[in-house]
Amino acid sequence: MSKVTPLSGFPEFLPADRIVEQQFLDVIRETFELHGFASIETRAVEPVERLSNQGEDADKEIYGVRRLAADSDEDAALGLHFDLTVPFARYVLEHSGKLVFPFRRYQIQKVWRGERPQEGRYREFTQADIDIVDSGELPFHYEVELPLVIAHAFSRLPIPPFRIQVNTRQIPEGFYRGLGIEDITGVLRIVDKLDKIGPDKVTEQLTSGPGLSAETAKQVLRLAEISSTDASFAEQVRALGVHHAVLDEGLERLTQIVTAANEHAPGLLLADLKIARGLDYYTGTVYETQLIGDEGYGSICSGGRYDSLASDGKTTYPGVGISIGVSRLVHRLISKGLLKASRGTPTAVLVALNAEEDRAEAMRTAAQLRSRGIPVEVAPAAAKFGKQIRFADRRGIPFVWFSTDGGPEVKDIRSGEQVPADPATWTPPAADVRPQIDTPQENQ
Amino acid sequence: MSKVTPLSGFPEFLPADRIVEQQFLDVIRETFELHGFASIETRAVEPVERLSNQGEDADKEIYGVRRLAADSDEDAALGLHFDLTVPFARYVLEHSGKLVFPFRRYQIQKVWRGERPQEGRYREFTQADIDIVDSGELPFHYEVELPLVIAHAFSRLPIPPFRIQVNTRQIPEGFYRGLGIEDITGVLRIVDKLDKIGPDKVTEQLTSGPGLSAETAKQVLRLAEISSTDASFAEQVRALGVHHAVLDEGLERLTQIVTAANEHAPGLLLADLKIARGLDYYTGTVYETQLIGDEGYGSICSGGRYDSLASDGKTTYPGVGISIGVSRLVHRLISKGLLKASRGTPTAVLVALNAEEDRAEAMRTAAQLRSRGIPVEVAPAAAKFGKQIRFADRRGIPFVWFSTDGGPEVKDIRSGEQVPADPATWTPPAADVRPQIDTPQENQ
Repeated sequence: MSKVTPLSGFPEFLPADRIVEQQFLDVIRETFELHGFASIETRAVEPVERLSNQGEDADKEIYGVRRLAADSDEDAALGLHFDLTVPFARYVLEHSGKLVFPFRRYQIQKVWRGERPQEGRYREFTQADIDIVDSGELPFHYEVELPLVIAHAFSRLPIPPFRIQVNTRQIPEGFYRGLGIEDITGVLRIVDKLDKIGPDKVTEQLTSGPGLSAETAKQVLRLAEISSTDASFAEQVRALGVHHAVLDEGLERLTQIVTAANEHAPGLLLADLKIARGLDYYTGTVYETQLIGDEGYGSICSGGRYDSLASDGKTTYPGVGISIGVSRLVHRLISKGLLKASRGTPTAVLVALNAEEDRAEAMRTAAQLRSRGIPVEVAPAAAKFGKQIRFADRRGIPFVWFSTDGGPEVKDIRSGEQVPADPATWTPPAADVRPQIDTPQENQ
Repeated sequence: MSKVTPLSGFPEFLPADRIVEQQFLDVIRETFELHGFASIETRAVEPVERLSNQGEDADKEIYGVRRLAADSDEDAALGLHFDLTVPFARYVLEHSGKLVFPFRRYQIQKVWRGERPQEGRYREFTQADIDIVDSGELPFHYEVELPLVIAHAFSRLPIPPFRIQVNTRQIPEGFYRGLGIEDITGVLRIVDKLDKIGPDKVTEQLTSGPGLSAETAKQVLRLAEISSTDASFAEQVRALGVHHAVLDEGLERLTQIVTAANEHAPGLLLADLKIARGLDYYTGTVYETQLIGDEGYGSICSGGRYDSLASDGKTTYPGVGISIGVSRLVHRLISKGLLKASRGTPTAVLVALNAEEDRAEAMRTAAQLRSRGIPVEVAPAAAKFGKQIRFADRRGIPFVWFSTDGGPEVKDIRSGEQVPADPATWTPPAADVRPQIDTPQENQ
């Protein structure tokens, strides 16, 4: 047997960090359900034919899956899904007769990409997606609603300040058309590099590539520099003096989004007209999310609207969706020391043993406590009390239960306080029942 | 793009059935945590070298995984894990320096096996495992504890009556040795077929294969016929007049298990001396679980004790574990019509719209209700009220919220009752907040 070594790009959590991840997933799931999203899970594999055609880079990253004992042509060529959108689109087509539209679904699953591993880029990672998909037409108001769900989820998580950046394809498209630009996608792709290469190089590329005049390139840059957490961005755009019906529609829509966000998620959403990523395949609003102060890490939650998420030739299914990069987010915050579970086990109480013969009685005590929702384990052996307390201490278990001549007692091993306790009624403080997530920086 | 077709062996749930599965997983997880098991997840892939050597059948079922764009020798040969024990053993070795032993872990994940698909046998399915592993030695009392955790979890699930069958390798081994049998494993493998081929054929194979005398074969069968939910099995075994120190130890251990079960899980555990599956690789207690009345479906939860779950050459890690076949169980009960979610969406309340201009106000109402834990969505359009009610009805959403001239009102669309309601205080009955699992047979 080969030596045991980690696989690059396939990170695994130790139990305490897994508790942090679980609590993130619980909050995300609960928030999605509060907003009426139903859970689905799709199989890990899709036909390779369905996974590819998503762009050359994506193709290279696909993991093929094949039974080791398979005859060469026995099975269809299968691959692991690399996102949750492609399988969801297939699920919608496959089950369309049994789904009720508009269909609100969430999906929290692992995905696999054969990328070169680096921090924040893994070969196996967890995503949490919400999408709303309809049959035929999808009203715009869902594009207003979706980032509010994400803002709600993130507001309930112990994460640093974040900002959801929103743009709408109609704004740059209408603005560019108003300027007489024809190669909309080409210009968007250059503007997308603004944060990376800066305005001078963008200007250079805009003039050399799509052949914009210096003044037109300047206008394109001026648009990309506009942002606001309120509706004032629209006036700034209008002040540039460019006119087009599509631009007006985009401004009206983004104003609706920012206005709703200012009521339900004040300060968390930014109309940011430089956001261009995905505007070549999204057809309406696009969303990106950054941790403030850690913008270089890139987006932790992205999405947008598709006019055709799926189509079976007869019916088209438009959709709008956002995907939280759960692994990207949790690994980052843990590695920066921003999050830590208060203990690495669910156990809140260790029932100590005076002698091995007392195990049956200790199991009764444990069962009584568990019946009231308290996680309990019984000591592994009737060792000296000091050793049993160290057993609890090493795991962060806050309470040790003793059987004394005077009756049962419970010790808070952090304070050392030991008090009489009835297993039928005693309850630890609410904050000790389950492990908590500590945010060390806040405590400094 | 190819037509969308299901993949045999890769079942997917519609949203309502997924809710059933989620509630099973929630109860299982919560119970595991009440007993102090910590969650881990391992990556989906292991080196093929580690996955194989687990028996020829297992090898044939392994799914290999490889980047489509990989150079031939670029990556180590990887395969999808086919259970959670092999990856857990590797995790223990890889992280042994950072784990605290004895280590209680649970693991709920998908596994993949390239088997021929049939009901209850899938190519992708979910397992929920608990194991307790120690460094060096593992006390026997964990073999008493583990089936109680499973009994606790199953008692909290809406499943038909079940029974956990337990045997201990020492009983047949000591008994056979007392009879002078040398090929213990050979005899166990034949006894394992008892339910399938019956006592006559087992006798025939015992005499022809390992060459047992007719009387010895009869004794082997008599042992296999013994079972009891209390400790009386031990007397029945002793009455057969076979003596061996290993047998005595086995009887003493199984008596301890049954005695504890009779207190904590009365009637749910059966000492069943015909259980032989896995006794060739388990080294102590073995567990199987059947649904009563559906024994032909096979075990839905199995496990046992390993003296060497893992070893790095210096340290050996003994363990005891049980695995719940969650997919096997949930698919079976759903397909038999025994379980049904009360609705296919988390949404408890649909906020209706009088006009599209009222959407902002409706979103405020929704946010108020959500802040008190009630799942809510706003109607997709300001359609006629009949249509909005049908929207709720088709999804099983029990309540529709209306804005009337006299103020807000809420209608229970099942009873038709409509009453004034304050979004700051109104709460649906507890049973309506989340979808419930109905057990149709019980209601008949």
